[in-house]
Amino acid sequence: MINEQLLNPSGIVVVGGSDDIQKPGGKVLRNLLDGDFKGRLYVVNPKVDEVQGVKSYRKVDDLPQVDCAILAIAAKYCPDAVEVLAKQKGTKAFIILSAGFSEENAEGAALESRIVDTVNSVGGALIGPNCIGVLTTHYNGVFTTPIPALDPRGVDLISGSGATALFIMDAGMQKGVKFSSVFSVGNSAQLGVEEVLEYLDESFDPEKSSRVKLLYVESIAKPEKLLKHASSLIRKGCRIAAIKSGGSAAGSRAASSHTGALASSDVAVEALFRKAGIVRCNGRDELATVAGIFMYPPLQGKNMAIVTHAGGPAVMLTDALSNGGMEIPHLEGEKALQLLEQLFNGSSVGNPIDFLATGTAEQLGIILDACERDFDAVDGIAVIFGSPGLFPVFDVYDMLDRKMKTARKPIFPIFPSYTIVKEEIKAFADKGRVYFPDEVLFGNALAKVWHTAAPQPENPVLPAVNVQKIRAIIDQAGNGYLAPEQIHGLLDAAGIERAKEGVADQEEDCVRLATEIGYPLVMKVVGPVHKSEVNGVVLHVKDEQTVRREFRRMMQIKDTYAVMLAQQLSGTEVFIGAKREQKFGHMVLCGLGGIFIEVLKDVKAGLAPLSCTEAREMIRQLKSYKIIQGVRGQEGVNEAKFAEAVARISVLVKIAPEIFEMDLNPLLGNKAGVVAVDARIRIEKEN
Amino acid sequence: MINEQLLNPSGIVVVGGSDDIQKPGGKVLRNLLDGDFKGRLYVVNPKVDEVQGVKSYRKVDDLPQVDCAILAIAAKYCPDAVEVLAKQKGTKAFIILSAGFSEENAEGAALESRIVDTVNSVGGALIGPNCIGVLTTHYNGVFTTPIPALDPRGVDLISGSGATALFIMDAGMQKGVKFSSVFSVGNSAQLGVEEVLEYLDESFDPEKSSRVKLLYVESIAKPEKLLKHASSLIRKGCRIAAIKSGGSAAGSRAASSHTGALASSDVAVEALFRKAGIVRCNGRDELATVAGIFMYPPLQGKNMAIVTHAGGPAVMLTDALSNGGMEIPHLEGEKALQLLEQLFNGSSVGNPIDFLATGTAEQLGIILDACERDFDAVDGIAVIFGSPGLFPVFDVYDMLDRKMKTARKPIFPIFPSYTIVKEEIKAFADKGRVYFPDEVLFGNALAKVWHTAAPQPENPVLPAVNVQKIRAIIDQAGNGYLAPEQIHGLLDAAGIERAKEGVADQEEDCVRLATEIGYPLVMKVVGPVHKSEVNGVVLHVKDEQTVRREFRRMMQIKDTYAVMLAQQLSGTEVFIGAKREQKFGHMVLCGLGGIFIEVLKDVKAGLAPLSCTEAREMIRQLKSYKIIQGVRGQEGVNEAKFAEAVARISVLVKIAPEIFEMDLNPLLGNKAGVVAVDARIRIEKEN
Repeated sequence: MINEQLLNPSGIVVVGGSDDIQKPGGKVLRNLLDGDFKGRLYVVNPKVDEVQGVKSYRKVDDLPQVDCAILAIAAKYCPDAVEVLAKQKGTKAFIILSAGFSEENAEGAALESRIVDTVNSVGGALIGPNCIGVLTTHYNGVFTTPIPALDPRGVDLISGSGATALFIMDAGMQKGVKFSSVFSVGNSAQLGVEEVLEYLDESFDPEKSSRVKLLYVESIAKPEKLLKHASSLIRKGCRIAAIKSGGSAAGSRAASSHTGALASSDVAVEALFRKAGIVRCNGRDELATVAGIFMYPPLQGKNMAIVTHAGGPAVMLTDALSNGGMEIPHLEGEKALQLLEQLFNGSSVGNPIDFLATGTAEQLGIILDACERDFDAVDGIAVIFGSPGLFPVFDVYDMLDRKMKTARKPIFPIFPSYTIVKEEIKAFADKGRVYFPDEVLFGNALAKVWHTAAPQPENPVLPAVNVQKIRAIIDQAGNGYLAPEQIHGLLDAAGIERAKEGVADQEEDCVRLATEIGYPLVMKVVGPVHKSEVNGVVLHVKDEQTVRREFRRMMQIKDTYAVMLAQQLSGTEVFIGAKREQKFGHMVLCGLGGIFIEVLKDVKAGLAPLSCTEAREMIRQLKSYKIIQGVRGQEGVNEAKFAEAVARISVLVKIAPEIFEMDLNPLLGNKAGVVAVDARIRIEKEN
Repeated sequence: MINEQLLNPSGIVVVGGSDDIQKPGGKVLRNLLDGDFKGRLYVVNPKVDEVQGVKSYRKVDDLPQVDCAILAIAAKYCPDAVEVLAKQKGTKAFIILSAGFSEENAEGAALESRIVDTVNSVGGALIGPNCIGVLTTHYNGVFTTPIPALDPRGVDLISGSGATALFIMDAGMQKGVKFSSVFSVGNSAQLGVEEVLEYLDESFDPEKSSRVKLLYVESIAKPEKLLKHASSLIRKGCRIAAIKSGGSAAGSRAASSHTGALASSDVAVEALFRKAGIVRCNGRDELATVAGIFMYPPLQGKNMAIVTHAGGPAVMLTDALSNGGMEIPHLEGEKALQLLEQLFNGSSVGNPIDFLATGTAEQLGIILDACERDFDAVDGIAVIFGSPGLFPVFDVYDMLDRKMKTARKPIFPIFPSYTIVKEEIKAFADKGRVYFPDEVLFGNALAKVWHTAAPQPENPVLPAVNVQKIRAIIDQAGNGYLAPEQIHGLLDAAGIERAKEGVADQEEDCVRLATEIGYPLVMKVVGPVHKSEVNGVVLHVKDEQTVRREFRRMMQIKDTYAVMLAQQLSGTEVFIGAKREQKFGHMVLCGLGGIFIEVLKDVKAGLAPLSCTEAREMIRQLKSYKIIQGVRGQEGVNEAKFAEAVARISVLVKIAPEIFEMDLNPLLGNKAGVVAVDARIRIEKEN
């Protein structure tokens, strides 16, 4: 568990600290010295008494008591050093930079396991091994550079890959992103991404804590923990973006050669992130852009004003936002005309608001005030301002900073020039501001953030099902596919409507069955193989008289020994499926049937359990949603009932986790509801 | 027309040149002086005799003969100055930076028009007005900074927006992209993007000319010219990428307020670019990334090796390439093992080839040699190499440059560190190399480049149609929807198979008609409104005997005065449409019918005329293509015949441009072919 000794140690020892700053042990010491660390600093180096001006002890045994140890020595020496530190020196925080542990071979794994046992035995915290270290606002505990600007209100970054953490910092720095902490968890021997997130959640202080978290992960070891703490943090007002790489087949192979762990199913990850409210990013630049967006107030609506001194970038941004499902409302009326009058001739205010290459800082101020005050249709403002290099633009960037301080609506600065305005950008970033170099990358990221829904409620309202009956059937079932009666029992217990059917070999039974099922119904001979060819199928049977007549006729047909009756159903084919996903629990899938699954792969997945609301959101995201609503004069499907069925299946698999996979395919849906016509359930009890 | 005086003038005068470099006239002079211009330089400034050390004339009239004039004076003074220069000073090239012309009002448009007339009268070239100017390897004729590195083998950039050209240069410079020329065409009074491209095409010299062209356009004034010269350049070995913005509805409004021109239909643009082989980009960063890719040899296949010293970025790049439809082939066997032996313990070569954070320049060389020589499955190599800041990486980047010089396979350098390796990156760029900061943005761009097909052939093979018959029908037709007989005539003349049908009121006629149509067929009463209710429809009629019997029976039915016979067709509903698009000619559209058009918008569009090959490519890009191939035991559609029908419609509308829009919806397709069941054609003759 993360502790105060790790975050804010009173003393740090670099075991393996050296004068050679081209080595991790030398470089991490250099970074500590260059940084703001105010505690005591020690080195252990068997050869010298002083390293980079810091007192060096020849052996770990010689050290005084010390909170935190950073180890940069060969793997084989680590367990003993940790033992002495933990048991004799009161050390409660360990950062092991060295490689050569479980990522390499079984021998290394044994070393790692011994270290974890030792650290656990004293209730300590362990970061790594095989990582670049830890950065907090108190100390620079990484062996890499650059060190980003550290700020308690900056970003908390947790990364499963050290080099990637470094490159993410670099990408962020180029947009002015500051960092509050960086945890490179390496092999996650004791503390992984999930545990760090748990700590950030449990220690969250609305007054002091950073509100932006970034994650880089290749495999999610503890999905439930990630879901719990990510959604909890977001409910507390945080914003989280994450890269989960290795989602493609080839990427999964690449990730497994990188971390040794098979990548999690990408569909499951997608569902987990959506449930948690995490913005999923695909690359470092996108992650840094989203982090930048997170540093500004959240949008309260999807209407953007675009303020620009150059037409082209504004057109491209308009395209990006509009294609991303946001609005760029046309601004007109008296207030717009008043604004136009205060700008140079040739300006336009219809949105984009183009105040021309000659536009001034003062005019920008007027425009921003108008957007804030006069245009209710505007929820946020993107300001594009570069420079042709004629004169400095400090005044413009200062104006942006000033207006940002008081505006309720977020103002996003896009600086399309770089080479010629480095100084201005630096001054702006030094005020703690983040900026965006490319309008389209910004626009795409903003649309993605906007479309990421809030986390699902902690305790969702779930449909009630007959738990006892479900458990009874499951407990009696063996592995493999369930028999029809078992399936019927489970569906009934879960409250899923299914097509009624039955078989009768006596006329009176047949009539009774027909009454139970209800009209209209279908009658089919039982016995003959080719039922149609022997005239053994009758559709749309509407009354008892026909039932009696057809029963008598059918029983005369060769090979017929009984008659099957089934509800005559009509509607649109939909489907619901569920699949147990390692570590993630069950994924529940839904969509339209037939070609929509098989050819168009138009399926949405959610992580069980799903409330009716969450199920409904999934349905609405289907590409074929219009068909469910009803299109071209066709009836459509009762959306509420479809969503309820999806939610019921998600509750069923929660209660019966022994269900390995199941399909209701098809269900027939119409305005009245959805009815399962065919179902398949496979049980696989875990040992 | 662009001329030598514009590209490489022996003398340039800056009319309106001043000492104030915060003004365009001062800044453009400064840039000329700072650049490599070797010719004579003059200034016209009514107030002084020398400006920035250059001789200044008080009046244009006082100037000696001069090839090229750059005007930075108020719009109203421009026409007279141009008059004197053109008529008296032998000036053949004009770059007008000033604004206040047709982009502002009618008065400005009149000034602009006068200038164009004057320039045309001497056969001169005019760039602008309302632009940032021109850059060539001979002179810096722009008033903006930064000035990118100029190199005859760099990129030719043509932009309809001046500021955007500036920002594109800036984005390119940050990746090491060099420029051969930059044309900011402003109002395109005489020379627009298309004319510059035409010149680059007609003057193309395989020995000397740059092979990479970038375009930024908001409205395409001359699509045919753009198509002609872009495809011609690409056939000559060039590579072209373009941003066409204003594609969304809101973006179109934004573009029109920017340039005054309505944006072209985005579907038409998409079709034009595909036909020409232009890589379409959506933003500056993407355009600069594609330009960077263009600076390396083209990929000959889609198999990429990823070489890295850090796992995470390699996993993300693998995902990006793989999701983009490229391959990252698994490398194994003896050669792979040999390679592995030469790397540090813990490296992997399965692809990604990860040679660890400790990997050396020498090892990189060995890996690149192996990829070039030993792994036939590899078509190109992406090398990811950043730095944790422990030591400089000059040797690694030098190795990259050296191997690039001899490798046949392209090697793309991805540098995920920036802050800490600025010097190394600069040294690499100074060797003329381009690099990529973000692996995912690179991967997405590479996949886009790979999937951009070659231009269509200059003289495509088109299906033969009956031109005379088509013209006869069209010439006789008035505006509006055509009558059934006219439609039948056009379809027959175009060689489109259609459902045969006819009406008979005599038994013998009916039998003859049935023989003509062929069996099976459908018979329907003509007269009664509700045909089914009076038993007036018979399907699947298979022989003459049934025709006779049913004819007699039907003629007895109340209100019946004739019987209609039609081919009994079955198959999958597909559709073909065509629409005249302003300036672009006709778009031809195809897809599956029904919900595929209406709900899923699964439609591909091509610019007429289309060869069967091009039509087939369109069909294969449909999301529902699998249904055309046949799926779930269903028959599918004869792809060759469907493509031929698309091509035939494209030829029809070329011959009959009076067709404003037409729909064949549906056609029924099966393995035998496609047959039009219903068609609508609307004529709108232009005045």
